[in-house]
Amino acid sequence: MRIAYLGPEGTFTEEALRQYSPDAEAVACVDVPTALDLARQGEAEFAVVPIENSVEGGVNATLDSLAHGTPLMIVGEVVVPIAFTLVVRPGTRLEDVRTVGTHPHAWAQCRRWMRDNLPAALHVPVPSTAAGAAALASGEAEFDAGLCSRIAVDRYGLEALVDGIADTWNAVTRFVVVSTPRRLPRPTGADKTTLMVHLAHNEAGGLLAMLQEFAVRGVNLSRIESRPIGDTLGRYGFSIDAEGHVAEERMQDVLMGLHRACPLVRFMGSYPSADGVRTRPAPGTSDADFIAARTWVRSLLQN
Amino acid sequence: MRIAYLGPEGTFTEEALRQYSPDAEAVACVDVPTALDLARQGEAEFAVVPIENSVEGGVNATLDSLAHGTPLMIVGEVVVPIAFTLVVRPGTRLEDVRTVGTHPHAWAQCRRWMRDNLPAALHVPVPSTAAGAAALASGEAEFDAGLCSRIAVDRYGLEALVDGIADTWNAVTRFVVVSTPRRLPRPTGADKTTLMVHLAHNEAGGLLAMLQEFAVRGVNLSRIESRPIGDTLGRYGFSIDAEGHVAEERMQDVLMGLHRACPLVRFMGSYPSADGVRTRPAPGTSDADFIAARTWVRSLLQN
Amino acid sequence: MRIAYLGPEGTFTEEALRQYSPDAEAVACVDVPTALDLARQGEAEFAVVPIENSVEGGVNATLDSLAHGTPLMIVGEVVVPIAFTLVVRPGTRLEDVRTVGTHPHAWAQCRRWMRDNLPAALHVPVPSTAAGAAALASGEAEFDAGLCSRIAVDRYGLEALVDGIADTWNAVTRFVVVSTPRRLPRPTGADKTTLMVHLAHNEAGGLLAMLQEFAVRGVNLSRIESRPIGDTLGRYGFSIDAEGHVAEERMQDVLMGLHRACPLVRFMGSYPSADGVRTRPAPGTSDADFIAARTWVRSLLQN
Amino acid sequence: MRIAYLGPEGTFTEEALRQYSPDAEAVACVDVPTALDLARQGEAEFAVVPIENSVEGGVNATLDSLAHGTPLMIVGEVVVPIAFTLVVRPGTRLEDVRTVGTHPHAWAQCRRWMRDNLPAALHVPVPSTAAGAAALASGEAEFDAGLCSRIAVDRYGLEALVDGIADTWNAVTRFVVVSTPRRLPRPTGADKTTLMVHLAHNEAGGLLAMLQEFAVRGVNLSRIESRPIGDTLGRYGFSIDAEGHVAEERMQDVLMGLHRACPLVRFMGSYPSADGVRTRPAPGTSDADFIAARTWVRSLLQN
Repeated sequence: MRIAYLGPEGTFTEEALRQYSPDAEAVACVDVPTALDLARQGEAEFAVVPIENSVEGGVNATLDSLAHGTPLMIVGEVVVPIAFTLVVRPGTRLEDVRTVGTHPHAWAQCRRWMRDNLPAALHVPVPSTAAGAAALASGEAEFDAGLCSRIAVDRYGLEALVDGIADTWNAVTRFVVVSTPRRLPRPTGADKTTLMVHLAHNEAGGLLAMLQEFAVRGVNLSRIESRPIGDTLGRYGFSIDAEGHVAEERMQDVLMGLHRACPLVRFMGSYPSADGVRTRPAPGTSDADFIAARTWVRSLLQN
Repeated sequence: MRIAYLGPEGTFTEEALRQYSPDAEAVACVDVPTALDLARQGEAEFAVVPIENSVEGGVNATLDSLAHGTPLMIVGEVVVPIAFTLVVRPGTRLEDVRTVGTHPHAWAQCRRWMRDNLPAALHVPVPSTAAGAAALASGEAEFDAGLCSRIAVDRYGLEALVDGIADTWNAVTRFVVVSTPRRLPRPTGADKTTLMVHLAHNEAGGLLAMLQEFAVRGVNLSRIESRPIGDTLGRYGFSIDAEGHVAEERMQDVLMGLHRACPLVRFMGSYPSADGVRTRPAPGTSDADFIAARTWVRSLLQN
Repeated sequence: MRIAYLGPEGTFTEEALRQYSPDAEAVACVDVPTALDLARQGEAEFAVVPIENSVEGGVNATLDSLAHGTPLMIVGEVVVPIAFTLVVRPGTRLEDVRTVGTHPHAWAQCRRWMRDNLPAALHVPVPSTAAGAAALASGEAEFDAGLCSRIAVDRYGLEALVDGIADTWNAVTRFVVVSTPRRLPRPTGADKTTLMVHLAHNEAGGLLAMLQEFAVRGVNLSRIESRPIGDTLGRYGFSIDAEGHVAEERMQDVLMGLHRACPLVRFMGSYPSADGVRTRPAPGTSDADFIAARTWVRSLLQN
Repeated sequence: MRIAYLGPEGTFTEEALRQYSPDAEAVACVDVPTALDLARQGEAEFAVVPIENSVEGGVNATLDSLAHGTPLMIVGEVVVPIAFTLVVRPGTRLEDVRTVGTHPHAWAQCRRWMRDNLPAALHVPVPSTAAGAAALASGEAEFDAGLCSRIAVDRYGLEALVDGIADTWNAVTRFVVVSTPRRLPRPTGADKTTLMVHLAHNEAGGLLAMLQEFAVRGVNLSRIESRPIGDTLGRYGFSIDAEGHVAEERMQDVLMGLHRACPLVRFMGSYPSADGVRTRPAPGTSDADFIAARTWVRSLLQN
């Protein structure tokens, strides 16, 4: 089985991929759209890409690539704790580090540590934390050190100056496993459904009305992020993770409500939640409640 | 065809009955529960009873009798303009009138006229406007005059002192035509659905949540009245007329939502609206919108 | 001190009056508007009238008389348990009772008992339970028995056939004590505020928006009743009891919101709740929370 | 007057700065936090930084830097149309371009054009579009071309191969002008207020309740973006632009409501809207409406 991922080797994304499938053939891609396109074109069965970071927020490239183009389906998620290692070429000392090549998100998550420990160091952005490590290892880097995942240290033969760097001790990144549309993962009772929804109009009332479609059916959201629709400033769509599976009645009812009320609803998958915490339906929102309600309404019509 | 109604002869209810069915055999009943019970027991095909007056509000006896006991179904409504005639026995002059025997609702609707024209006159409550007229005619009345419908004047051989008395020039009473459950009247595009709904809990939030079940499906209410549930002070149910027919998808969806959210929902009928004004569904709430939404959700499940 | 009340002597209203003020000079009035007018004109310091019954619902005459005309203020409430006594002239036996003269509300509250025990008995409506008793006592009654309060039995020298009749064992009636506008009763922590509110427009959304003014400030309603505005069928105002006192910040904020959003808001008083149950403000809605919020906003303006 | 901005010279941010203040001494900074810190420390009177792009969405570094640390105040906004120029060193032909050094946001906004015109070209991320141009000009670049603002072409003596590149023809970036807290800009009738709000709890209901604080006062939002609070996955705050000025009553009322309901509300300024479109208050939400409501409530308390 081939799985495309946001490369290069040695990133946290590779770590997520290995959690999902230890033995797959991993295909490193230069960016998120490329990884997703491999899945779209059938050159890889799945793609693993980051979607959300507890410090940096949504990963725009992923949110936008999933929301546009040939439909893809999220079939799983993996959550990876994030801490960085400050790496150098053998011989470089901490006090020599003036520039650090790493991905901007990594830099952002170590800002406070850098300010406290290397206040003069400047950030050199590179496409990934592993790319920084690779450049260091090759001797072609324009910077003195990197901030990368532990796995990259060994892979590139670098020296770890400091391990476990993270401004937020419990930082995590959430990755999604994506494929072309296929049979839905079976509901486990602890599931998520991911959607992209555009609003009918852009006032406070529009978002309010959209959220009420969830609230009246007792469906909670675990993530909501606005993304510009792109046609004009101030026009937003919303990327949403809702608790539950589309095989459940209340989620179907939410989706029907959104489909009627919103100019665009894109269903991006229902899949097991990484935390495995079972959703407890609010009173009146279990499948049995929906079925009883439908049976009752049908009985009214049979008079 | 036999139709029971709130008698005696000569009331506005009889007028409503005649509008609905000019040639039916009319069975006058002593009170609303009796009229409804005749329909329940099959001794009359229909019952015609007042449900709402534009001045006095809901008719409690009707609301409560419909809400309890063997289910009945509202199959039609009739709206009758209300104005009263001051009647006396031949020979009585306006200045002789010291007491007026009429139904309390009639009295309430002529209060200002009475204050302006017969300020000293006292009200003697009688069970119906026609009962007052009948008592006057029989010579057994303890009062000098009556306030009744025009039709009662001739029927009881009384003298009309003043016609068209009404504090509110456009006062009307709305009557419902009721039967045992039968085939629903066909939707006309201008329909009403009548419900009794109890709330899950009694806070502002409970009523709010109930109303949102209507609002998210774009269904308007033309009447909402609280009625005590009767078990303790401050516990209320709501008698509701909603615009639309249960054969319409959005109304079915509202009913399903209410059934899930509320401890009691009693469906009391879908029937043509007397005013014939067609309901214009809000965007996204037509039958076609519901069907398209359901088709879409089903397509998601077939992956 | 003179207090007007809905007479005649021997009614539950008199009982309420005595609870409120054992030694006042009680002035029995022929109907609710008359009692309220005595208070309006200063001929009585207070009026005591029924406003709500746990079985029959709101007392329309009171709701409407308070909502129109020269403003009055509710300064207190009294809750009286309701059970009736079947009274007759000495010598009449239960099996002789064919007609019962009582107020329609009393009749409604004993319907089941009557059906079970005197199924053939007919109701003769009289203006009050005590009027029925008085008529019986005077020998001029057209009926065989009365259903009245215990206090009326002795007062009119009648014989009690059955005591404690009530279809609902815990039925109560709530009375309000009313005066011309005066200094507000001091907040006790267990208070009610009574309002009449008209809606800006008549759709489900209008009532929803009105209720949200309460909900966003965490103010619960203990009673809400629709009353026709009277100009056309389907135009309703709402008579509301809200938990809390206008001296409290959150109630002031609700009132400001209603004043801005609704074409008519009539404040009818803040007064101690009869049950004495203290209101526990929802988080963020105490006076201290409001004051802190205002102080913060003012600090923003002082830059 | 000194103004710090997100450098280097030749970026769109410099263009925004010049629109705001043609003659200020412009201080280029290496990143957004640095520019904001110069303003915080008084070394610059203002800082100009991008906050929102019609294609890429919110600028996280700006949103987060404004939301944390010593408070800053937004005093103005500038909107700049965004189109890019493909630049090379003199002599490079379009067909020679294999790598393009530009900021990831610029790359994202030209993705489709690149795919259509230079499908084989790879992206080399650099800290800014101008940095790419500068590197090209210096001869030290590892890439063949840049995508930068028109102003940078001349400044760095480069050759423009293609002008006006933008996947979205009306793309704009919005910049804010920031200072330490000072006297608020005067309301113009066309203003925005920027806030950061954390939710009391994280369910759909929490966001719904927060939005209702705006909706009940008729205040529209022109931007809402979730930002992770950072303590755990799925905990979000919301960065909000609301229409109106804190000097207006309805905005003050919203802020008071948020302060009471939410664990954190950070006011980040009220300032003239770049589009100059005057806000039309919804019925019942003008300053006069608020003042009338307050006067009425005070009159109730003076009894």
